[in-house]
Amino acid sequence: MPGYKAPVEDTLFLLNDVLDYESCATLPGFSEAPLDVASQIISEAGKFCEEVLAPLNASGDRAGCARHPDSSVTTPPGFREAFEAYALGGWIGLPVPPAFGGQGLPYVLSMPMSEFASSANMAFAMYPGLTQGALAALLRHGSEDQKKRFAPKMAEGRWTGTMNLTEPQCGTDLGLLTTRAAPRPDGSYSLTGQKIFISAGEHDLSDNIIHLVLARIEGAPAGVKGISLFIVPKIIVNSDGSLGARNNVSCGAIEEKMGIHGNATCVMNYDGAQGFLIGEANRGLNAMFVMMNEARLGVAVQGLAQSEIAYQNARTYALERQQGRALTGPKNPDGKADPIIVHPDIRRMLLEIRAFNHAARGLALGAALDSDIAHRSPDPAARQAAEDRLGLMTPVLKGVLTDIGFENTVKAQQVLGGHGYIREWGMEQFVRDARIAMIYEGANGIQALDLVGRKLPRDGGRAIMAYLKEAGELLTTNASNEAMKPFVAPMQAALADLHKATMWLMQNALARPDNAGAASYDYMHLLGRVALGVMWVKIARAALNAKICAPETSSAMDARLTAGRFFMERLLPETAFRLARLSAGADTMMSLPAEMF
Amino acid sequence: MPGYKAPVEDTLFLLNDVLDYESCATLPGFSEAPLDVASQIISEAGKFCEEVLAPLNASGDRAGCARHPDSSVTTPPGFREAFEAYALGGWIGLPVPPAFGGQGLPYVLSMPMSEFASSANMAFAMYPGLTQGALAALLRHGSEDQKKRFAPKMAEGRWTGTMNLTEPQCGTDLGLLTTRAAPRPDGSYSLTGQKIFISAGEHDLSDNIIHLVLARIEGAPAGVKGISLFIVPKIIVNSDGSLGARNNVSCGAIEEKMGIHGNATCVMNYDGAQGFLIGEANRGLNAMFVMMNEARLGVAVQGLAQSEIAYQNARTYALERQQGRALTGPKNPDGKADPIIVHPDIRRMLLEIRAFNHAARGLALGAALDSDIAHRSPDPAARQAAEDRLGLMTPVLKGVLTDIGFENTVKAQQVLGGHGYIREWGMEQFVRDARIAMIYEGANGIQALDLVGRKLPRDGGRAIMAYLKEAGELLTTNASNEAMKPFVAPMQAALADLHKATMWLMQNALARPDNAGAASYDYMHLLGRVALGVMWVKIARAALNAKICAPETSSAMDARLTAGRFFMERLLPETAFRLARLSAGADTMMSLPAEMF
Repeated sequence: MPGYKAPVEDTLFLLNDVLDYESCATLPGFSEAPLDVASQIISEAGKFCEEVLAPLNASGDRAGCARHPDSSVTTPPGFREAFEAYALGGWIGLPVPPAFGGQGLPYVLSMPMSEFASSANMAFAMYPGLTQGALAALLRHGSEDQKKRFAPKMAEGRWTGTMNLTEPQCGTDLGLLTTRAAPRPDGSYSLTGQKIFISAGEHDLSDNIIHLVLARIEGAPAGVKGISLFIVPKIIVNSDGSLGARNNVSCGAIEEKMGIHGNATCVMNYDGAQGFLIGEANRGLNAMFVMMNEARLGVAVQGLAQSEIAYQNARTYALERQQGRALTGPKNPDGKADPIIVHPDIRRMLLEIRAFNHAARGLALGAALDSDIAHRSPDPAARQAAEDRLGLMTPVLKGVLTDIGFENTVKAQQVLGGHGYIREWGMEQFVRDARIAMIYEGANGIQALDLVGRKLPRDGGRAIMAYLKEAGELLTTNASNEAMKPFVAPMQAALADLHKATMWLMQNALARPDNAGAASYDYMHLLGRVALGVMWVKIARAALNAKICAPETSSAMDARLTAGRFFMERLLPETAFRLARLSAGADTMMSLPAEMF
Repeated sequence: MPGYKAPVEDTLFLLNDVLDYESCATLPGFSEAPLDVASQIISEAGKFCEEVLAPLNASGDRAGCARHPDSSVTTPPGFREAFEAYALGGWIGLPVPPAFGGQGLPYVLSMPMSEFASSANMAFAMYPGLTQGALAALLRHGSEDQKKRFAPKMAEGRWTGTMNLTEPQCGTDLGLLTTRAAPRPDGSYSLTGQKIFISAGEHDLSDNIIHLVLARIEGAPAGVKGISLFIVPKIIVNSDGSLGARNNVSCGAIEEKMGIHGNATCVMNYDGAQGFLIGEANRGLNAMFVMMNEARLGVAVQGLAQSEIAYQNARTYALERQQGRALTGPKNPDGKADPIIVHPDIRRMLLEIRAFNHAARGLALGAALDSDIAHRSPDPAARQAAEDRLGLMTPVLKGVLTDIGFENTVKAQQVLGGHGYIREWGMEQFVRDARIAMIYEGANGIQALDLVGRKLPRDGGRAIMAYLKEAGELLTTNASNEAMKPFVAPMQAALADLHKATMWLMQNALARPDNAGAASYDYMHLLGRVALGVMWVKIARAALNAKICAPETSSAMDARLTAGRFFMERLLPETAFRLARLSAGADTMMSLPAEMF
């Protein structure tokens, strides 16, 4: 069975040494979690995932979920107990204000648990993850009464949440959705329609399920401007908070999927189900976007998480499996062969994964910290800058971390050769599970369009301009440091590629929108590589500092510096490739008649 | 259920217009198959795969194989009848000399069936595919008596074949194998040991199974120089050719795998099984390499084959699924949305696959034609040149076609969004099936080492030098043709990258072998891109000619030219990226202590 060890030390190093967590100490919630408390929370999260969630991963994949004739759904053995323990630990409500049953701690401190849980058991982690996303939307857009009625139970994990967007005829294009909401005399609505691909739509982990559902109020405008968001509880909640009658919503089927078998992906049938409007009528997409943005960051972390656990198990195999001899002569002369870690190509694969994981973790934590600043800072300029960065980076992290995360599970599987393809070693599950992260919460091509079509041009390009400026200054600041040369020089070239690509878009996309679409995916990956590189510059600086201030950490810091140099040598050159691709424009691809494909 | 249409027209165009099949007309076997006969064979192969094999693909994946308490194994429903029809069609013995029950036709004409069958049903196609590989080794290295006794039944498909290399402690490093062979008084051997990952090791498709088994004769030298190859029939074959007693070889278990569920991957136990030495004692690896080389080409084709069927189904979806509007205004104004083929990023994904498939098919057919020339040409210089090209290209095609082929199944799955992740659409099976091709018959990292460590330096670099020269001449010849400019100019840059990479290896690998290992994978992919590009140059030239000679084919030829330009613009720039990566050398990756990974 594959093993898992939560990267607690790495996380703390990133939070403290690289991201300067303590600089946020004056923000609300942060004072309750100084570094020692944060450290304890992160360690506890790691322990829980290693001991409780990881052992249920392979068995959960095999058992899967089952739907019964009464439309109830059972999750794999052990999930119920694990979820109870997860909820009791206070993990779901960690960043939720105490007024609504949470601990009011920084959002960034819920990130490590998101990552560790998604490594240890991705299918399981989606249940609390979706609940947190639904909670975020509810807290932002719900009425006081709605928040009081639903949020505390969700924060405690006694009720879970879902998001219901997709219908058979509409996925990406939500304007096509047809689920309808008819007003009832009591001010609530009666929802009718079918939703598909609803993760955690039905299960046996909680007393109630709070569905957030997009639907069209009768008479609403066509398209996306006529969509409203509703709370549809599985079981009606009485005004005193007790549970009442079963609502007319049920799971019609669960999908057979490539992976995440432990999570129930449901067809949900709404047959005149009672629903409660959240926020304004016809402004449902806005409210849903809060949930989606948080969910996108969560999905980005799934990519990293699967990359991490796949790395750990490939590493273990590479240290143990003996096959062949080092090209430079035996390294294990008493054995019949050397461990395969002596072979350069095995090291290449492992280092490609590792050089991604460390920086990707830094980016995810950084984005969460930006979310905290954006929501909690008293300084409007700081809030705006953080919101700009977060808006720009959310599609990039979703698209790039899940794409590379998946590739890395494939690479790690390759390290095991034939054993990687066999179920018992567990590697193939990581591949199957990681695959979905590139698709849901907006397929990665949609993330790229969000980036190029919305996030770049917004506010006259303020976010990307600020990003380019900040990255340039970081390089300038470190340019004179000899030890930073292997990081600064390649990054200057990569940043120049990003500049050129941004200019290319400005010059070519307005006149011909297809050029934006044709360039979007490569631009997203180009920006993603630069962002990972920027994070490596920060990590390298912190590691060099740590070697001086805490010489006992030297070997760990040297390993970081080596992984960082590897990134600069082997992964960063992709920026030029992406620039060459996107500069080709849309002409060729648009010139082929559709029927000739 | 996913559909499949065999690319018969594409194949004929490549064979005739691009590869000049008829220039081989004087070689033995070719005179029996002029172009019209070849065309008929290829059409029949396509029809068989579309009608008989494709309908069993999804059902075979679900049913899988089952091992019974008596160690017998049953294949999925329908496989037995399909195999009988396949064998009756004469497909297995197509390139086998008539003296041994075959049709003596060109090997290149068995390629289309290999591809089509692997598209339609990869798990099924492995049964005849392995039989053909075993036959090739037997015909090359077996004694006259062995050939007469075993080959005709195998060519007829009444018996099947396997290759038994891997053991629990040895995969890549065959020197570690411990299966032992004790001489018997009658000149045969008694084999004892365990083999794992044996594809088609046991099943219900044929009357007998002829295992080719690597083992160590008692007293043989340690390492790879003490390995011999044996024929071990599942059922002993009497001297009159009739079947005798059951041999002491049995299937101990079948593996649960990520994919190719319709093929039984067996643990094979040899408990004093009677075996017959093929060729010389202790020279078993040499004989096995014949089988492995043919098998490697077959696996390369599996990568292409899965890429092709994945493309076809993604294309169908992209033409039918309506979602969103074209960036340039509605293309389907009467519908609620446009088909997603209007979106540039969907076209990007489809064209990336298509621009690979067409050229990859040309390379596979070209390699098969080289194999025919190498074995059948009366001209020693032509034989040698063909053998050089084939030796150089075999690891490249295996590594690159399976790597890109797998990536393409993932890309095609992405086109379907959430539906790509659901079993019923069939796309996820292509991903799971395609994955194994990167691993078996020598993991792709091993192919890269074979290329850089053996194939490049062999005969003073004769093969690569000839390749570079030939590619350079092709570009020179076409340089003055204005219509060829979009192909020639980018290829000149790519060829320069390959030159530089080859020089880098010459200068850096001898002094430091780890530099060869560290560069191998990128070099393989660099050469692979150049080879695909060279094929595109040939295709483009042929397409331009065809537009003049056969104007009625213009729209198909224009589509080819568009796909080719797309290749040059979007896929070929990867050569510079690969060069940058490999030029980084081994220092960084080798400097990290093993325990710090």
